This record gives sequence, structure tokens and C-alpha cells, in this order.
Amino acid sequence: MKAAILYGKKDVRIEDVPKPSPAYGEALVKVKVCGICRSDYHYWKHGRIGDFVVEKPLILGHEASGVVEDVGEGVSHLKPGDRVVIEPGVPCGRCRYCRIGRYNLCPYVRFMGTPPINGAFVEYVTWPADFLYKMPENMTFEEGALIEPLSVSVHAVRRAEVTPGSSVVIFGAGAIGMVTLEAVKAAGASSILVVDVDEWKLDVALRRGADAVINAQREDPVSVVKRLTGGEGVDYVFEASGAEKASYQAVRVAKRGGVVTLIGLYASDEFQYPVLEAVIKEVDIRGVHRYANAFQPAIELVAKRKVKVYDLVTQKLPLEKLEEGFRIMDVGKEKYVKIQVDVTS
Amino acid sequence: MKAAILYGKKDVRIEDVPKPSPAYGEALVKVKVCGICRSDYHYWKHGRIGDFVVEKPLILGHEASGVVEDVGEGVSHLKPGDRVVIEPGVPCGRCRYCRIGRYNLCPYVRFMGTPPINGAFVEYVTWPADFLYKMPENMTFEEGALIEPLSVSVHAVRRAEVTPGSSVVIFGAGAIGMVTLEAVKAAGASSILVVDVDEWKLDVALRRGADAVINAQREDPVSVVKRLTGGEGVDYVFEASGAEKASYQAVRVAKRGGVVTLIGLYASDEFQYPVLEAVIKEVDIRGVHRYANAFQPAIELVAKRKVKVYDLVTQKLPLEKLEEGFRIMDVGKEKYVKIQVDVTS
Amino acid sequence: MKAAILYGKKDVRIEDVPKPSPAYGEALVKVKVCGICRSDYHYWKHGRIGDFVVEKPLILGHEASGVVEDVGEGVSHLKPGDRVVIEPGVPCGRCRYCRIGRYNLCPYVRFMGTPPINGAFVEYVTWPADFLYKMPENMTFEEGALIEPLSVSVHAVRRAEVTPGSSVVIFGAGAIGMVTLEAVKAAGASSILVVDVDEWKLDVALRRGADAVINAQREDPVSVVKRLTGGEGVDYVFEASGAEKASYQAVRVAKRGGVVTLIGLYASDEFQYPVLEAVIKEVDIRGVHRYANAFQPAIELVAKRKVKVYDLVTQKLPLEKLEEGFRIMDVGKEKYVKIQVDVTS
Amino acid sequence: MKAAILYGKKDVRIEDVPKPSPAYGEALVKVKVCGICRSDYHYWKHGRIGDFVVEKPLILGHEASGVVEDVGEGVSHLKPGDRVVIEPGVPCGRCRYCRIGRYNLCPYVRFMGTPPINGAFVEYVTWPADFLYKMPENMTFEEGALIEPLSVSVHAVRRAEVTPGSSVVIFGAGAIGMVTLEAVKAAGASSILVVDVDEWKLDVALRRGADAVINAQREDPVSVVKRLTGGEGVDYVFEASGAEKASYQAVRVAKRGGVVTLIGLYASDEFQYPVLEAVIKEVDIRGVHRYANAFQPAIELVAKRKVKVYDLVTQKLPLEKLEEGFRIMDVGKEKYVKIQVDVTS
Repeated sequence: MKAAILYGKKDVRIEDVPKPSPAYGEALVKVKVCGICRSDYHYWKHGRIGDFVVEKPLILGHEASGVVEDVGEGVSHLKPGDRVVIEPGVPCGRCRYCRIGRYNLCPYVRFMGTPPINGAFVEYVTWPADFLYKMPENMTFEEGALIEPLSVSVHAVRRAEVTPGSSVVIFGAGAIGMVTLEAVKAAGASSILVVDVDEWKLDVALRRGADAVINAQREDPVSVVKRLTGGEGVDYVFEASGAEKASYQAVRVAKRGGVVTLIGLYASDEFQYPVLEAVIKEVDIRGVHRYANAFQPAIELVAKRKVKVYDLVTQKLPLEKLEEGFRIMDVGKEKYVKIQVDVTS
Repeated sequence: MKAAILYGKKDVRIEDVPKPSPAYGEALVKVKVCGICRSDYHYWKHGRIGDFVVEKPLILGHEASGVVEDVGEGVSHLKPGDRVVIEPGVPCGRCRYCRIGRYNLCPYVRFMGTPPINGAFVEYVTWPADFLYKMPENMTFEEGALIEPLSVSVHAVRRAEVTPGSSVVIFGAGAIGMVTLEAVKAAGASSILVVDVDEWKLDVALRRGADAVINAQREDPVSVVKRLTGGEGVDYVFEASGAEKASYQAVRVAKRGGVVTLIGLYASDEFQYPVLEAVIKEVDIRGVHRYANAFQPAIELVAKRKVKVYDLVTQKLPLEKLEEGFRIMDVGKEKYVKIQVDVTS
Repeated sequence: MKAAILYGKKDVRIEDVPKPSPAYGEALVKVKVCGICRSDYHYWKHGRIGDFVVEKPLILGHEASGVVEDVGEGVSHLKPGDRVVIEPGVPCGRCRYCRIGRYNLCPYVRFMGTPPINGAFVEYVTWPADFLYKMPENMTFEEGALIEPLSVSVHAVRRAEVTPGSSVVIFGAGAIGMVTLEAVKAAGASSILVVDVDEWKLDVALRRGADAVINAQREDPVSVVKRLTGGEGVDYVFEASGAEKASYQAVRVAKRGGVVTLIGLYASDEFQYPVLEAVIKEVDIRGVHRYANAFQPAIELVAKRKVKVYDLVTQKLPLEKLEEGFRIMDVGKEKYVKIQVDVTS
Repeated sequence: MKAAILYGKKDVRIEDVPKPSPAYGEALVKVKVCGICRSDYHYWKHGRIGDFVVEKPLILGHEASGVVEDVGEGVSHLKPGDRVVIEPGVPCGRCRYCRIGRYNLCPYVRFMGTPPINGAFVEYVTWPADFLYKMPENMTFEEGALIEPLSVSVHAVRRAEVTPGSSVVIFGAGAIGMVTLEAVKAAGASSILVVDVDEWKLDVALRRGADAVINAQREDPVSVVKRLTGGEGVDYVFEASGAEKASYQAVRVAKRGGVVTLIGLYASDEFQYPVLEAVIKEVDIRGVHRYANAFQPAIELVAKRKVKVYDLVTQKLPLEKLEEGFRIMDVGKEKYVKIQVDVTS
């Protein structure tokens, strides 16, 4: 079968590899669609993310949907022909974090497309059946491949405990910012401001239901939010840009007693932070690391049309052109929200 | 000014009464629209609700919107001409319940249209300005008068801590059931079943977005919900019918670890309840008594079109015909969801 | 090895059975001490608890401590000689309840000493090593065998979200009532009332730190609590008696906005309940089914002397005399809180 | 009556001022004991704290107990002779923060001993009776004057949602660190590490029940905590030192999914912070600004001997020697935890 293998920085090769067989508890999935995550791009460009180094050839990709082709022993809830979404992080199921239900914090998690676990830019993958979710009939493979990023936002919205009728600021209008916009709309936020530096992305946000947008290159988001909220700030802030400055401003635009939820991964381990303001305003700061128990609700939200994600896909490429996707993200000229790879469909 | 005064059981008279003046901290509001609540009907029919007895002539009505005509001293956030919604319960602001933010539990609350406090079926009322909320420009007085019942549901949804992508059963498809349907949709519920005994109301629920409806006179709601959920039950149950049997079934249709929120007021102080099942399934049972801090989010939800309430009004009557509204509710032949009184508009 | 085998109602025989070997992931534990739970007694007396019927010979016992004698493959955190506490419920680790951390609700749980799983009134048991907890050096086997009931209370106190400085009523002064008293003291409750019908048990409660006790046969607990709290009721109520009347009164003695936590297992599936009062007061009712993630904190509390449980043991019997323990519980003349079986020590 | 009046930096004068009379809703309190808070010292030394500037003569002091001498109209729950604790922050009772029960965030709060509101280093004060709490008979005025700092910790422990059997690190072994130690013990923490740079204070912490102490000048707290917890970190961290470095380390010593509660007021508005680690570990960061609804539980905890505070008083001075107290804090040679002023007793 065909695979897109990363051999090193900016070196992806399409090669033939042996088709795997499902072990006990696993299913063999024919991958249909797999989205490109910013982390895939990062591995491609830098050959590493923090301590995770691409030391030997690796197949990337963890935003995938497909069709079950075979199941191993001990698998009862799936059968060949089932259309499925893949949850890419498989926790140990036994440690203290797994036992309390926060399995995204499991130190033994095996994460698809992250060294040394191969990912889904390949025709077939085997994966633990417990982490495959049946797709409702009305869901496309493109939508299925968007469940992973949407799950990040579903998890974030639950971490933030958003209540209906509240006000929100989202920093970042990329893919995660956009699914967060969908998730906070689904959670009943009644006023949503989106901040970014890219006018094109802000236009997308406006079209998708943001009440207003702020171009952080032209205006100071803190002043604008304060002005728009009579000096109060907002109930909930989501930082989905990964920009340290945005993380800083997130605290500043939060109302007293507000909640700041940080989804972004920052380039520096540490940076200047308005801790004193957070203390005095009793703003809660909550991190988001992937997701736990979020795939099923995310699937429901898409299937029941409570959120709309299919139109986030701006480019679709065949597996052979995966690297073109990375280059689009690298050059930054061609606009995109989510680039997906059409692996076998 | 004209008032509709309840003199005793089924005895409402339209009379002239002196127009009041706003005291310190109060505003004088010209009432535009006031909805009829089931409790108004109950006072009209029985002359009492529990310990609250209509001992002297009383003006009913507490679901009101209007226009500020005058303000007393010490009022700065309102001025004549402001269109406002009235929050009918004014707590003491000082007791332990007020101090922890659960002011709906304040034992000293003064509640509009409940003996001995006069209500809003009258041309003018004075009311503490802190409990008047400015209506956004795009909100009608009819919508304004629906904020009170919607606030019950907003409070209920927050008590239940509904999260996006979850499954819900609502018992009762009357006015409270319908605003609860709106509120759980706003909170992101992705699967909503509505139970009632009135086919016409169930049709309304279906048209308003219920995924399925169950006629409890024809089918057993517990069996149907179990069947539809693969034996699991649902995440959240809202009991908005006031029927004891529904309250009982609410526990039975909840998933293990589910949450049952009781909004209904039951005729008996006590009745048979499946307590053991609630214990074994660790189902949380949470009561809802009116609302606290719910008017502003409810207004936002309507203003931003996150919920739709205007079309819940099935009948509109002039003040003189208030009693006709009560009779519609009494006879039960003419279908209705919410009957509103057009006081001065 | 010797085992106490229940053949049917009131028919326990001490017999020789083959000593088991630990399978993959399991440890072989030499049982030192195992307490008698009210459910053991119930199986002995009635041959069943609800749907769980003793259809073939069964070894009871699930409150056990012991010493690891051997470990199967795949076990790394334990070695022969380790002193351990046994968590008797082993969940599937894969279902939706396990994944959200509420593994006590797992429908596939295997529970020690419950048909058809044999228990710990036997010299040796094999058990999944993940559900064995190392005992700190300063903890005795008697204390170790009390961790199971204490875990119920630790779970209950967390379900109730008890905060320091609050007021509590506990219904029931048996073993679970007493560990609940310990747990609420540990959680900082500053006023604790205990209700029971047995004067001797109430004396025990007083000596163990209850601020006051109420004999429900002589006084009405509702009136007394109301009188002692100026009519307000208390913040938290724990029902640990299993009496339906107590469950009813639990709601009545709760403050507005209070929390009622039900631990007891009631004889009837349903009974009269003051639902309306719970709604109007917004009292939360929360069931407790065993425990999840409670053994480690329970062990810490005992090891650090934050709670005192060793003196709850009122009788100690050798394995051969297990049935004498059941008879003490049956006749009810001899006073007891917790009867333990000294299996091999 | 005698008052200690701050005229400017390091300029306190004992002068005669007119004795006030209680207005409507107020009581006149004869001040017995008033503790010196670090903020009092800060005003004395610098003449300001942030935007709060001592522009005209000011009486400091807000940790006070006393005896009611007279009550104004409208006061029913107090009478002359009642021994009371003073809650120094009086919120507006009407804004959105007051209404949701987080009245410590009220922008209109009037705070005793903070410009321009005079404090309690004076023989008599008038204060809203709703913010005076009756002292139980077994509580001394010294203890009463410690309720204010203890309330900060009670609030912090509730913000953190500490559960019994958990592990804690406290940064800072000054007065707030010590009452936090008491509060977390009361909340059932079973393992408590205290970090400071002062060996004498660490000894006090050890004697008061810390399981271990860490001198941050000799050892790296992060390494030590990691070593003591097998690399995991702890469940809850409280930062009560006000040192920016400690605030930073607080995140580092927290377990995945842990909670960091910041009580300290930092000298800089912003500083380097390990935000990325907080995100990846999903550590919640929660600020603490004074307290809300904490005085009554704090009083209960002291009265019922669940916490011990009386022995935190290391120096006691007459009103005339208030400035000597400031000098002790300034010079730093004489050891102290809490210095109290014996105003009239």
C-alpha cells in the first residue's frame, strides 16, 4: 500500500509499505480523508516538536476518517464496511489520569502520527477499535476528518464551562479558532468577538457568525474589547492562536471572574504574563491539552447540524501531493483554513 | 389608570386605581405586554397557591415588559422612554442566600403578582430599577414579556450544566417545556425528545426542533427512551410538566450518572419516587425555583436570535379580556402555548 | 487452602479449595483481614440481593487486606511481600463510564464476593494488580480492611462537595455512618449531627466527635434539626442508614440550596418522597454507588491520621467463625459497628 | 476618642477624634483587637498601594474584633454588648458581581482602612451591621481579629476545591501561609509541604503540621517536590508568599490536572510565567482576591477548634505603639507571624 513517509525536514516520499493486519482488539481501517494539522506541518518543517523528534522515517497524519476493512479478535462493535472516525490518542486506560477520566493527561498515551507512532497519510492503518467511532450516515468523510480538531474545541468549551447567553473573545481565526467559534456558538454564546492579524481569516470568521472581528495589527484588541463591553471585558476568552501576545491579552480582556482557556501551543516555555491582573480579577486560567471524551459529542454536533465544519476545508489534495499542502502552509500566500488529503477516496 | 383586579375565585374586575409614583430607587413603568402564567390562572381558579392566599383584592401578572415613564431618585441607569423587561422577584440583597448569589432562595423576596404584592395586569407599575432590564432595539414587547419564562429555563439549563453534544428528554410541552426546548437547543443539546399527552403540543415541539416526541398517553416514555438510546437513557432530563408521574419517569429515563432537573410544581407535597434507582445510577436530582441572574443572558439569547420565542404566543387579548384568557386555560378546548395580555399597546 | 463457602441461606461451610495462581496482570494475595459488610450478611440471610442470586456455592467478603505472595506476568508495581488493600470492584476500563472516570457506574464491573465472583473469606485470592494498593508501613491489616467502607464515604464527601466550616446531618450510626462521620470531619465540617435509633450507636457517634445526636425513636429529627439551626436546616445531609424514612427526612432537614447525598440502599424500589420541597428549596439530591478513585485518598487519610478507623472494629473472629459474625448481625443483641474476620493473621 | 492616624510615609500620630454615631443600618463598635496586615505596613512605608494613595490623613486597620456599643435604626440582629468580628469589605449589593455571589469582585466595594475609608486602629468605628458577625462565646478577641486573614484562606481553599486525602504545596510561611496551612488541613489535605526562605518560619510551619518544609534559599522547591512525589507533583498548590518566583514555581510543582491558587500580590504587573507547561499539563490557575461568604465558616472553624489560630499572634502592642509594629515588620530582625494591636482591651 501507498504511504507518505517523512524522512526528515521537508522530505516526504510516497512509498510502498506492507499492509498491516489488525491485532487483538484492533480494526484495519482504509483511510479515506486525513486533514493536515499545524503539528504535521511543524514536523515537516522542523523535524521535531519539542522533545518529540523524527528520528526514523515516520508517517504523519492524525485527523482521519475511513472505512473498516477487517477487525481483529475481540472486536464486537465494528464490522467491515463501517465508516469510522479515528481518535488518534490511545491512553493506557490504567493510570491515575485515565482512571479519573482525564485520559488526555495519560503519560503513556500513544498518539497517531507522533514519533514513534505512524499516522494516517497512508492507505491503511490498524487502530484499537475502542478508539474508532462509527460515522452517522449523513456525515461525509471530510466531516469525519474534521472531528479531531472539533474535539479540541468541544473539550475547551467544556473546560471553560460556557453557559448560554454569555460573551466570548476568541484569539486566532485559523482552523482551531474556527472550530472554537463553532463550539462556542453551539454552547449558546450570544456575543462572539474574533481576533486575528489576517484580514482574510477575519472575513471568514465574520461570515461564520462572529459578531465582530478585531485585526490585532491595526487595533489593540484589549482597548477594543473594553470599549465594546463598557469597560467590563467578556465572560470567556479562548486563546487559539498560539501567539504569546494573544495569551497575554486573553487575561486582559476577561471580565472579573471570567475564564481564560488556553488552547494554543506557545513557542517559548515561558513569557511575560499579567499574573497580578488575573489574581485581582479572579480570572481562571485553564489549559487545554487535546481532548478526552469529546469525539462522540463532536460527532453528534456535526451529524445533527448543530455545528457546521465541512466548509472549513479550503484545499483538498491527493496523497501524492501531501507536501504541496505543507508548502501552502509554509509560504503563507495561498489562503487556507483546513487542508485535507484525499487518501483513497 | 385601569387595572384588572382579582377579588376572589373567578372574579376579575376592571377598575380604575390611582397611578403610583416611583419611590427612591424605583421606576414607573407603563406596562405594554404581560403574559399569563399558569400560576396566575391557578390564583384565579383557586384563590390561592399553597400558603399564598388571595385575602384582599390583588392585581396578578408578572411576565411583563413596558416603557419607563418616570424614575425616582437614585436611579441612574434608566430614563423615561427606555423599553424594559421586569424581573418580578426582588430579593432582600442581604441574607445568606442573596450573598452567595442564589437570590431566588431569598426568604424575603417580594414577588410581583403574588399576595400581597400587586402585579402587572395594570397600566402602570412602580418597580425597583435594579430589577428592570433595558430591551435591545430589535426586541418586541411580546418578546420582552417572554423573558420571564425563558429565564426559568436558562436557570434550569445552568443548574443542569448541559454540555454541547448531549442528549435530553423534556417532559412537558407547554410554555415552560417549550422555552426549555429553546434553552437546551441553545446549550448545544444534539438529541432532544419531548414527552407530553397532548398531540397538538407535541406537534408544536416537533416543529420547533425536537428530534422526536412521545405521547405518554399512547406509549410508555420510559420504554421508548430506553429503546431509542440502546437501553442507556439520556444525559439530561428536564421535568417541566408538573405531573408527578413525569417526575418519576424522569429518573427512570436518565442515564447512569445523568442529571434530572425538576422545574414543575407538583400538586402533592410528596409522592412515590424511584429513589433507589437514582442512588444506584448516581443520577443527580436538582430542583429549579424560579431563577437568579438569568434575565440578562435570556435577553441576549433572544436579541441575538439564539432562541426564538415570539411565536410561542398563541393568543393576544386586551386587558379587559384577561378573564377570557383564564377561561381558555380552564376549558382546555382552545389550544394555546402562551396567552399574552396587550395591556397598553 | 481454607475457604468459607456460602452454599445457600445460612449455610456457610469451611472447606478446602485449590489455591489459585495469578494470571497475566494479577497478583496472588494472602488474605489477612476481611471485614463483614452488611451485604455479606444479606447474602447469608436471604441468599440474594435484588437480581444478584447465590445460585452456586460462593465465597463472600470484599473488605480485605493481605500480603502479595506472587505476581503474574505484566505486573511491575507490586512484588511478593507487599502489604496491600484490595479494591473489590474491577471495571472494564473501556466503556463510556470508565472513560469519563466514573468507573463505579461501569455496567461490566466484576465485584468481589458478589455472584458469580468469589470473595476474600479465603486464604488466598488472585486479583488484578491495578486494583491492589500498597499499604503504608504504619497501617495495620485491620485498618487496611476498613479502607473499602471508608472509600464509600470519601466518594460521598466528594460527591457532596463538602466545604470547610459547614453543617452536616448524618442519618445512620452504623459502620457507614461512622466512616461518613470521619470523612466529613476530615473535610472540615464544623457542625455534625448524627441520627439513629440505637442509643448505643449514638453514644459511639458522640464519642467520635458528633456535636449532637438525635434518637429518631424518641424525637422527630426534622423538628430537632430545625430547632438547632434556627429553622434553616443544614448545608449537607448524608443518608447512611438505608431507612426510607431517613431518606425522606434528609430532604426536610436540608437548608435551601443544600445537598442531600444518599448512600443507603433502600428495601423498596420506590417510596413516598418530598419532591416538591426539594424543588422549591433547590436541594440537590445525589446518589452514591460504591466509589471511584477513592482508595488512594482513603489510604492517605488513614496513614496520615486524618481519620481514625481502627477503633470501629468491635469484634474480631477467625475464619472458621465467620457465621458467628452473621449471627451477631442477625440477632442484634450484641452491639457492633464493624465485625472483622482474621483470615490468616 | 483615640485614633492612630497615618499622615504620610512613616508618620503615624495618636490623636483625639470625635466618636462617631451609627447611621441607619450601622452599629457602633468599640474596637478591642486589630491585627496589622502586610498592606497596612505597605501604606505606612510607601504611602500607597498601587492606585490607592494616602492623600489625606487615614486610619489604617481592617482585621478587627470588638463589642457593639450602640446600633442605628434598622438593625435587628445585633444589640449593645454583642461581641463581633468585622468584615472590612462592604460591597454595593446590587452590581452583577454582588448578584452572582462574588461580591469580592464588586467594583464599588468600600474597604475599611483603605483610602478613603478609615479603619480600626481607633477606639470606635461605625460599620454596616450586615458585615458584623457575632463571635461565639468561646472565641477570644484575638481570635476574632484573625478571622479576616483566615477568611482569605477559607476562600482560597473553596476556590481550589480541595478534597480530602490530597497533596498540597504552600508557598510562603507568613501569616497568610500559616492560615492557609490551617485551612488546607481543615479541608482534609493529607500531605502538605511548605516552602519559604526563612528557617524560623519553616520551623513554625513544621510545628503546625506541615509534613515537610523546603527552604527555597538552600534547595530548589521544584526538584524537591518532584523528588518527594515520584516526579508527579501535587494536587493543589497555594501561592501565599507574593514572590514572583514562587508563583512561577507553583505551576511547575503542580501535578497534571492540578490546581494552582494564587493568593499573593506581586510587585510587578507582569513577569515570566511557564504558561506552556500549564497548558500541556492542564493545570488550572485561579486567583484569590480577598473573600466572599467566608467569615461565617471561618468563625465556625475557629469556634469548633477545627483550626487553631490564636497562637499565630507573636506580638501584641497597645494602640500607642502601632508604629513599633510597623518597624518590626520593616527591620525584619525580630521574628513575627502576626502582630496585633490591643486597641482597648
